[in-house]
Amino acid sequence: MAVSSDTLNRGGWKVKGPEEINQVVREASPALFDALSDLGRRVAYPPDIPFQGAQARGKTYNGTIGQITDGRGAAVSLPSMSKVMAGLGSDDLSRAFLYSPVAGIEEVRERWRDWQRRGQPESKPSTLPQVTNGLAHGLSIVADLFAGEGTPLAVPRPFWGNYRQTFVVRRGATLLTAPVYVDGRFNPGAIAEALADRPKGRPAVAILNLPTNPSGYSPTAEERRELAQSLTGMAEKGPLVVVCDDAYAGLVFEDDIPRESMFWDLVGQHENLIPVKIDGATKEFSFFGGRVGFLTFAQPPDSDIATALDSKVKCLVRATVGSPVAASQMVLLQALRQVDIAKEVEAVRVLLQERYSILKEALTRVDGSLLRPLPFNSGCFALIELPAELGLEAEPVRQHLLEHHDTGVVAIAPNYIRIAFCSVAPAALGELVRRVEMAVSELAR
Amino acid sequence: MAVSSDTLNRGGWKVKGPEEINQVVREASPALFDALSDLGRRVAYPPDIPFQGAQARGKTYNGTIGQITDGRGAAVSLPSMSKVMAGLGSDDLSRAFLYSPVAGIEEVRERWRDWQRRGQPESKPSTLPQVTNGLAHGLSIVADLFAGEGTPLAVPRPFWGNYRQTFVVRRGATLLTAPVYVDGRFNPGAIAEALADRPKGRPAVAILNLPTNPSGYSPTAEERRELAQSLTGMAEKGPLVVVCDDAYAGLVFEDDIPRESMFWDLVGQHENLIPVKIDGATKEFSFFGGRVGFLTFAQPPDSDIATALDSKVKCLVRATVGSPVAASQMVLLQALRQVDIAKEVEAVRVLLQERYSILKEALTRVDGSLLRPLPFNSGCFALIELPAELGLEAEPVRQHLLEHHDTGVVAIAPNYIRIAFCSVAPAALGELVRRVEMAVSELAR
Repeated sequence: MAVSSDTLNRGGWKVKGPEEINQVVREASPALFDALSDLGRRVAYPPDIPFQGAQARGKTYNGTIGQITDGRGAAVSLPSMSKVMAGLGSDDLSRAFLYSPVAGIEEVRERWRDWQRRGQPESKPSTLPQVTNGLAHGLSIVADLFAGEGTPLAVPRPFWGNYRQTFVVRRGATLLTAPVYVDGRFNPGAIAEALADRPKGRPAVAILNLPTNPSGYSPTAEERRELAQSLTGMAEKGPLVVVCDDAYAGLVFEDDIPRESMFWDLVGQHENLIPVKIDGATKEFSFFGGRVGFLTFAQPPDSDIATALDSKVKCLVRATVGSPVAASQMVLLQALRQVDIAKEVEAVRVLLQERYSILKEALTRVDGSLLRPLPFNSGCFALIELPAELGLEAEPVRQHLLEHHDTGVVAIAPNYIRIAFCSVAPAALGELVRRVEMAVSELAR
Repeated sequence: MAVSSDTLNRGGWKVKGPEEINQVVREASPALFDALSDLGRRVAYPPDIPFQGAQARGKTYNGTIGQITDGRGAAVSLPSMSKVMAGLGSDDLSRAFLYSPVAGIEEVRERWRDWQRRGQPESKPSTLPQVTNGLAHGLSIVADLFAGEGTPLAVPRPFWGNYRQTFVVRRGATLLTAPVYVDGRFNPGAIAEALADRPKGRPAVAILNLPTNPSGYSPTAEERRELAQSLTGMAEKGPLVVVCDDAYAGLVFEDDIPRESMFWDLVGQHENLIPVKIDGATKEFSFFGGRVGFLTFAQPPDSDIATALDSKVKCLVRATVGSPVAASQMVLLQALRQVDIAKEVEAVRVLLQERYSILKEALTRVDGSLLRPLPFNSGCFALIELPAELGLEAEPVRQHLLEHHDTGVVAIAPNYIRIAFCSVAPAALGELVRRVEMAVSELAR
């Protein structure tokens, strides 16, 4: 017997289904509604167990939630596991072992919002961020919401390869690309070039990953203005979702380069321009193993459309991972509660800045006929182009470095070598560069 | 400019692409290949950064991975965060803050495999489990691999509502269902009934959630035999993926009810029968906030097909969440390393068993014309049917309990009330049942 989606789910429940939620989105932002994928239109948070559990919170007799507690709401954890996290107070410890709300732990979301918005004026709206399982999960939810078969996806190249898995392999988007560097300089028009042939009115998605991976670049103030202008211009042609992948936010090593997210430059700039902010603790708080990411829209937190988007995102979080990691959120929360947390974050930036300076210096001394370092000023990486005239691909260079020089780098097709200085000791950077140069020289003969 | 998937990704790399991997699957198990969805056929782990990073492990000069380390491989964590997990030794602490391998931390996978297989003979093959972000993530990966538009999905009802989001809303599967209880008794033929009209040869997916949510039931030895026979019979008609959702594994409260997963009963029973095991620390180790799940196939761990499936699952893990949570894996690992961990797990079972006995006793005393408790013997829940002759739906009863009786329960359409005794104090269970009975009596007048 086949059962329709409505039979079991929405019976006597007083909640908004997808049609009502879509209506809210459409009224508040026709462009955002147009940009939703088929899946994005289908999803709405269902009135099932977490929904009913949330309604029962605080009741004296509460038999809603399928998690093991002591009967008074506290976790029953295995002693060999809870003692690991003994640095948490007993309430926090309990919350680390129990389910997180599907949208994330409220205090974490509020404190992260304060962190994101430091220095930003009240006038720029942003939703209460929703917690995801790392930034990649935020990206995959954005892909579910806005990308379907054939959706134009603009990504400056070279780019982080996982965009392909998330948007193209999983969701069928059509990848369009243009070079992020032209003549050795950052190209603020890359996204516009990639989308040049977009039919008028056709919604598109663009990814803005600044500081960049793999090229470790953040635009200057002037380049940012050009970039914002170019995106606003593109929005004239139809809805444009701009995914600000702020993984490396704040890791900027030159004083004259702006550090804040481009998200804030795009908020409210054009009705067709839909910025979405993806950020999190992975790099910003050096918590790679924690998988705490956040997804934020450019809407006022209590608006109807924010609630509608919240419902869609929660449905996708539940459908993909059930709920976000409570344990890692509670670890992160200890940092967010520190008044002077910016100092701890700054200490990591300063550590990387030292390596950055050493690597930059080492790269100025390489033979330009073998290695052509591209400009970098931020993030975790430097990118080196192998001069076209050598006719060398990056992959054999990488293999040669592994086999003969006890050295690992990342090869990016066709002819780029990425050096992650974030995981190399300062004293080793010079030698690493020397070995890359040597390998190229050996293969180029 | 549009870029094909092969241009950037597979250039000079010596790795298997999707076509080669599909060939391996097809040769080892034509049925499993037939059961793969379009997306399942497209995915293969790409040779990008984590792949290249894994190859560079142990090199003296390693600039592959974009995570911040001290340059000798140890994490650089914020003091306010690392002190929370001070219960870990320094190596483990570092691993908690760094990226997990995409398939999970090797020692965790191996120890979990030992835990899963306790009491099982060598002759039953199972892969090295892959770590997922909780069991829901394992289910969503199985949905990606095996369910597409119109794939028949058999789920005995009532069922955990999230199967709908994961398989139907996200992937377009067609939900087919049949009652798990008939005349107040467990129905081992529910899946066969749900799939009765399946065209011969059409691959299908079935979900076997034992102990059940929401009905807290595990089959007797005789019912298990009937169930296994029925599934093997169904496999005669075409490939059948049986997803063993073992969320509540081990939580069995009657001595004569088998405790082991049905997965082991299905391994190797028929070439068309494809059992997949989804389990994890959430309930089995009472670590709800940790989000550590595992996905296991019924193949020998070093077989070519195991490697091929590993590649597909890793691609989907990377595309959806990047990598699993290292912090929670390290917490779980402390438990898995204990020689007598079974004692800690058993203590939680005994705690629930006490509540189970009290609730069972309380339910024997209810007025059968108001509440019809269904048989239960395991898991975290009891399910109560509202007698059809009352003409009452569950949802108004739930609302009435919230509003007038300070009591929260879960309503499952059309006429079921679920009580989660896992989160209710023993002393409160009798009163909770009394209030549910009272609410029904008030509304039934």
